[in-house]
Amino acid sequence: MLRLKISMSLDGFVAGPDQSVDDPLGIGGMRLHEWVFPLAVWRAMHGEQGGEVNESTRVVEESLANIGATVMGRNMFGGHPGPWDARKPWNGWWGRNPPFHHPVFVLTHHSRKPLELEGGTTFTFVTDGIETALDQARRAARGKDVSLAGGANATQQYLAAGLVDEMEISLVPTLLGGGERLFDGVGTDLRGLELVRTVATPQVTHLKFARR
Amino acid sequence: MLRLKISMSLDGFVAGPDQSVDDPLGIGGMRLHEWVFPLAVWRAMHGEQGGEVNESTRVVEESLANIGATVMGRNMFGGHPGPWDARKPWNGWWGRNPPFHHPVFVLTHHSRKPLELEGGTTFTFVTDGIETALDQARRAARGKDVSLAGGANATQQYLAAGLVDEMEISLVPTLLGGGERLFDGVGTDLRGLELVRTVATPQVTHLKFARR
Repeated sequence: MLRLKISMSLDGFVAGPDQSVDDPLGIGGMRLHEWVFPLAVWRAMHGEQGGEVNESTRVVEESLANIGATVMGRNMFGGHPGPWDARKPWNGWWGRNPPFHHPVFVLTHHSRKPLELEGGTTFTFVTDGIETALDQARRAARGKDVSLAGGANATQQYLAAGLVDEMEISLVPTLLGGGERLFDGVGTDLRGLELVRTVATPQVTHLKFARR
Repeated sequence: MLRLKISMSLDGFVAGPDQSVDDPLGIGGMRLHEWVFPLAVWRAMHGEQGGEVNESTRVVEESLANIGATVMGRNMFGGHPGPWDARKPWNGWWGRNPPFHHPVFVLTHHSRKPLELEGGTTFTFVTDGIETALDQARRAARGKDVSLAGGANATQQYLAAGLVDEMEISLVPTLLGGGERLFDGVGTDLRGLELVRTVATPQVTHLKFARR
């Protein structure tokens, strides 16, 4: 099962305008994620202690459970557009020990050898499209689910192809006014995905979609 | 207090593409309102008996309570763009006895005499902008609140001007893929409006924003 989790603004953006290496979420984009940082479950994922437990906790826990592999777009892996810099390769935003701890498949137009980091995270670069990346991730997940980690463009492709089986949208009651829209080019068809659960907090509304 | 209530799709549209006299909500736009039609409270408003009571009932009841006047855009009043047809004037979508039963102020660039219909609904056409229309509505409301009924363009103007005091967005878990976006041109500032209540049903998520 391919499961998307993503935070979206009230005006439909998953990243703000003017994304760059220095500002990977775009202007204001960090506001989409402020609900998650205080949570104990998120802090633990990043090796920190303490934190809150609230209604969002079970949503985050559920999104992390039973995931055996991740697919993501080049823009989510980040760094720079175009061919990889062989002398000074971009190795992701997450440092030496990324919080995935399983195989990650990165959609890109530019081939590159796999990258093995600490804690069980490997990045494999897939140049022949979303279906191949998903096939590889499914095999690597060994019966567990595959997480679709974004960004907007990769997500739009998987949604438009009807390949997303579950979608947890964390709707943040703020406006970004520009940037990357989650549903641009997806059309009018949710491909059988229906709203199956809503978890509401003052900071965020979690909307879970699945096939019934 | 100026109170907006509006239904919006998951991709941010409050009307579908290709709005016309025959299809005033645009393609697919009716799907934004399907949650309200079965409700007893909505049927009673339109002179019909029976219907459902569910979690949305109190949201609709609240949105109707203590309203003394309504402002709306020309596109919401509808009919056709440009000057009014003096021989065959457009009198709104709602028939002889519209469901407002109070003074309604219509934003337009084309002057026209007030229109008095049955049941206490009068339409006054205001040609000198959103603030004048709101002033007139406030006076007509005699201490009660003013409802902002749409459409998208009028709503965007009031939101951008910071004149909306309360906003009930009924988010429908469907995609329209095009049409009129609620927040186009509004920018990044909700002008002090914060999420204060969420009411969730399988058909719709009601997001209430107010100033704290």
